[in-house]
Amino acid sequence: MTKILEISRSRLHGGQQLRLQHHSSALKCDMVFGVFLPPQAESDPVPVLYWLSGLTCTDENFAQKSGAQKLAAELGMAIVCPDTSPRGTDLPGEHDDWDFGSGAGFYLNATQSPWSDHYNMYDYVSRELPALVETTLPVTDQRCVSGHSMGGHGALMCALKDPDRYVSASAFAPICHPTETPWGIKAFTHYLGENRNHWQAWDATQLVPTVTRQLPILIDQGGDDEFLANQLRPGSLEQACICTHHPLEVRIQAGYDHSYYFIASFIGDHLRYHARALELETHSH
Amino acid sequence: MTKILEISRSRLHGGQQLRLQHHSSALKCDMVFGVFLPPQAESDPVPVLYWLSGLTCTDENFAQKSGAQKLAAELGMAIVCPDTSPRGTDLPGEHDDWDFGSGAGFYLNATQSPWSDHYNMYDYVSRELPALVETTLPVTDQRCVSGHSMGGHGALMCALKDPDRYVSASAFAPICHPTETPWGIKAFTHYLGENRNHWQAWDATQLVPTVTRQLPILIDQGGDDEFLANQLRPGSLEQACICTHHPLEVRIQAGYDHSYYFIASFIGDHLRYHARALELETHSH
Repeated sequence: MTKILEISRSRLHGGQQLRLQHHSSALKCDMVFGVFLPPQAESDPVPVLYWLSGLTCTDENFAQKSGAQKLAAELGMAIVCPDTSPRGTDLPGEHDDWDFGSGAGFYLNATQSPWSDHYNMYDYVSRELPALVETTLPVTDQRCVSGHSMGGHGALMCALKDPDRYVSASAFAPICHPTETPWGIKAFTHYLGENRNHWQAWDATQLVPTVTRQLPILIDQGGDDEFLANQLRPGSLEQACICTHHPLEVRIQAGYDHSYYFIASFIGDHLRYHARALELETHSH
Repeated sequence: MTKILEISRSRLHGGQQLRLQHHSSALKCDMVFGVFLPPQAESDPVPVLYWLSGLTCTDENFAQKSGAQKLAAELGMAIVCPDTSPRGTDLPGEHDDWDFGSGAGFYLNATQSPWSDHYNMYDYVSRELPALVETTLPVTDQRCVSGHSMGGHGALMCALKDPDRYVSASAFAPICHPTETPWGIKAFTHYLGENRNHWQAWDATQLVPTVTRQLPILIDQGGDDEFLANQLRPGSLEQACICTHHPLEVRIQAGYDHSYYFIASFIGDHLRYHARALELETHSH
């Protein structure tokens, strides 16, 4: 029986914003995650959007900065926000860099020591955490997934590696081709080792031809994002999707940057996109 | 000629979220403030909501956490967020306490050394900053004022001390009677000295009978706010308003706490309240 500790609970838009702590068996450490429960969850279980955050974030950034809960409360969607890496493990060098180690788990399962003992974020966000929330909170197994930057790539991986587990997928400014861009190369070298053949299973662009089912993907990307050309490369993913006729919509939003202000500006569109896939009734504009 | 330095600019809901730095003559230090400019400001000057934040906040909390800009972009309102105290002054003991000194300017003009050299936040937020933004940004002199907790009291003071300068006023969980509650007593003792006769001009409840014009006030207060009974005391303000027939609406919101989740839940109501006072056309629900 998994024990969950309630760290905080705040009323928000008629629902509840929670921070919950539990011991993760995939990560072998205690983890905190955020949950927004809409008012509808008081009477019936609701579907869940899993939101995967970017480098340096915690479970709190999306909850505090996206403004997503207002519309989620209207639509009747829960939002679950995991942290971005194992915590409290203090591995050698784990906290030295902002783009690797703590806060930078990259939503993969590491194979290299010492990371492989704890850094199994893919199993955590796609298996252990959904199982936990679906057995302990008033939510269904209808799952949507989205995320930002590193977490945008995490969302793409969830959709591409195991599309049957998700109803819909979207991403904000995702890293699209980490095996060819600096953040990804650095992280994959540490987590997965030097042999690049082992990287393919964790690269969205390389996963596109391998899918068992084509789950449509919506991407919003800021046109003035400072990381667009060097780190994110949506064109690589688009090319892979064109070659395999994988449904993908990439919207370049002129003038927007990589910040949460960009996410806040378009999260409503994404929630409605997921709500349509979930066939939720919406009376909002 | 005042020089303004642009620290950052992000596109947000079709408008712009800015952080701007300038030298304040009232505070004798460099100050940073936030401005949201709605899309309408590209063609015509727009009215301004001045938002005064609470203890420990900076110019950024409201911009990042309130979600107010989405509706402000629809209504055509700018939002100006000053910092909560002078910065960079390093007075003796200034940074020792979270409820006094830096981050805790209480929106008054200090009379006691060494605070009186810099801690003139009332002049700053009600005079210098509006004059600055009205001469340098595409905004009008139609001003609304609101705030949270310490900043809620600041908003009440602006409305009560100089109602002709504002079109409308509201507050979230304001400190209502600081001369009788712990945060206020501590701050006033330092900033204004031991003689309590000099405190009355900076206490909203005591200011109510002195007003030259009655500006209606809307207050939202969380029913589960941990500071309600000990620090905030809306009942004192209500009593003073009843005695003088000052228009005041206090809404106790059951289950809500003191956090930004409470503000995010009701900021839309406040923006619409101010928009009605400004006679802005709104097509939103």
